[in-house]
Amino acid sequence: MFEWTLDAVDGRARAGRFNTPHGVLETPLFAPVGTQATVKAVTPDQLRDSRASLVLANTYHLYLRPGVEVIDQLGGLHAFMGWEAPILTDSGGYQVFSLADRRVIDQDGVTFRSHLDGSEHRFTPESVIATQEMLGADIIMAFDECPEPYDHAYNREALARTHAWAARCLAAKKRTDQALFGIVQGGIFPDLRQQSAEFIGGLEFPGNAIGGLSVGETKDEMYAILEIVDAALPQSRPRYLMGVGAPEDLVQGVLRGVDIFDCVLPTRMARNHTALTMAGRMNLHKVLYREDSRPLDPACSCYTCRNFTRAYLRHLCMAKEMLAGTLLSIHNIHTLISLMRQMRSAIVAGGVEAFSTEFLSTFRDHRPEDI
Amino acid sequence: MFEWTLDAVDGRARAGRFNTPHGVLETPLFAPVGTQATVKAVTPDQLRDSRASLVLANTYHLYLRPGVEVIDQLGGLHAFMGWEAPILTDSGGYQVFSLADRRVIDQDGVTFRSHLDGSEHRFTPESVIATQEMLGADIIMAFDECPEPYDHAYNREALARTHAWAARCLAAKKRTDQALFGIVQGGIFPDLRQQSAEFIGGLEFPGNAIGGLSVGETKDEMYAILEIVDAALPQSRPRYLMGVGAPEDLVQGVLRGVDIFDCVLPTRMARNHTALTMAGRMNLHKVLYREDSRPLDPACSCYTCRNFTRAYLRHLCMAKEMLAGTLLSIHNIHTLISLMRQMRSAIVAGGVEAFSTEFLSTFRDHRPEDI
Repeated sequence: MFEWTLDAVDGRARAGRFNTPHGVLETPLFAPVGTQATVKAVTPDQLRDSRASLVLANTYHLYLRPGVEVIDQLGGLHAFMGWEAPILTDSGGYQVFSLADRRVIDQDGVTFRSHLDGSEHRFTPESVIATQEMLGADIIMAFDECPEPYDHAYNREALARTHAWAARCLAAKKRTDQALFGIVQGGIFPDLRQQSAEFIGGLEFPGNAIGGLSVGETKDEMYAILEIVDAALPQSRPRYLMGVGAPEDLVQGVLRGVDIFDCVLPTRMARNHTALTMAGRMNLHKVLYREDSRPLDPACSCYTCRNFTRAYLRHLCMAKEMLAGTLLSIHNIHTLISLMRQMRSAIVAGGVEAFSTEFLSTFRDHRPEDI
Repeated sequence: MFEWTLDAVDGRARAGRFNTPHGVLETPLFAPVGTQATVKAVTPDQLRDSRASLVLANTYHLYLRPGVEVIDQLGGLHAFMGWEAPILTDSGGYQVFSLADRRVIDQDGVTFRSHLDGSEHRFTPESVIATQEMLGADIIMAFDECPEPYDHAYNREALARTHAWAARCLAAKKRTDQALFGIVQGGIFPDLRQQSAEFIGGLEFPGNAIGGLSVGETKDEMYAILEIVDAALPQSRPRYLMGVGAPEDLVQGVLRGVDIFDCVLPTRMARNHTALTMAGRMNLHKVLYREDSRPLDPACSCYTCRNFTRAYLRHLCMAKEMLAGTLLSIHNIHTLISLMRQMRSAIVAGGVEAFSTEFLSTFRDHRPEDI
């Protein structure tokens, strides 16, 4: 269980396999986000058709509603949401620390008020592990603090808590059928990131995550941090870059040793009527798609591209039909997952650099209406 | 083409088959409504899984947006919306007459302002047929006036127009691969309904519709009118009761000789978080479903009931997730279609009266939480 196999390495990029109780994850991979135990607007069948292998759910949201006891009572998160493939839950830390004036941090944990009804709750490393054990995901996350990225003094102080909490999470864990991943923090600061990657990578986590990125820093700052963390983390375990989903960042992340990504980007863009293609973003409101009989991406094999034209999708968007969000979500998820599968093939073939250069220039320089 | 076969008659109830260019319709049947070329919140694949055989689309809405030229350009409505089974379009009359202070009626047609942008348009019997010929549905509807049901003088005046327009629609029709249905009007007035059914039934329509019901009259008034129209219309053609979808009304309609129904009811109720079951309506917000591990209806074989619990569906509703509308729409459509299939079997077996009595008492007296 939780065996990690490196099938190929090409530069810093890795093609791996991670065994979980609900199936083998082939990496690099992109995981769509099902915040409230549903990837918004799509069914589990549609997710499978989009070739999703791993889905993320948010512990903070499910803890508040419907409550983890309800999900436990109904057989755990897989049965509850009808997704029998691997699931990852976050620790709830990111959401709790985002509550700003609704939370108080101490050395032992965080006391916060629900964004739903103002009720008071407390998360500690131990409670967060217990909650995730009740949810029953295949991969669970350590409780960490995710601070603003630019304050060195505060990041140093928060990092001490994150490291202490990581060790407490490992000690609190009881179930053996869940992989607990540690999380590297440290803002945009090379010294803190180096220290954190060494500390977290030195603990007995079967996988390591990189948190606190894609939270306001520049892309160059993010890529620089990834290089430091990549060099410091053990090669012998998978790495998960949290909350990153822009196509160019997935590619840059894979080139810097990242194996797993998650983000709301493809589904949120879909609900805002933007399609992701290998040649850039496509705003479906544009009048030029009014009678365009082509699929979103002629090279794409998703349900949406197999069955519908740009003109029809534009009509659904203009008419504010729910089906627009569904069909664009299916396509956008499929696109990011296909991109990761193509990178995997390129890594195995030893051509990831050429593939990435080609993709990044097409994605930057072409217009989707020309493909 | 458009052959109508009566497989069985049981009392006034009929089990028939209607041949269309996109497949055979077995009746009685319920058609879900895809106003803007999409049944709200469900894909064509999900509709097929719900066993839908016929889908309705609204000419008024599609005429205004995206425009019939766009749909024609893209190969017609079937190709546009990805639904290769039979489609029925209405004439747009119902929507135009609902515009109240935005329309002016004359003997030749109706001038109206778009609810979208206030632009002025005109529908005549000839233009409405031309529009529906561009859309390309299998069944198209005559242009009729649908007045308030309680004013005899006005209904008599409107009926003269509806009858004159029916003849003009027949004369205007060019395509031979579409079945044009006439529409009986006359409000709640037996004399007008008798006269209209005789007039419309005497024209060369391959099917006849009953309009102007379920618009504010009582259920008893509706059932009484159905009996008059049933006796006056020819048995040798299918009858379509427009805009009716409550389960008890479907059953009462079939018992009064109706073959085809359509309504937004199952999908609208779904988006309002109400499930239809054979034992009544189920409001998913009720706390009693919080940990209920049963499917919505244990006897139902739809995708939703095969895969999800009441507790999960309630969670999606409380969390305002789009998937709630999708999964409840799939179930509600499946329920009405199954009800019609069960009635068909009962008619063929000669037991429609017993089936209906049983269904109506269960639907009235039981609570879905007890099934």
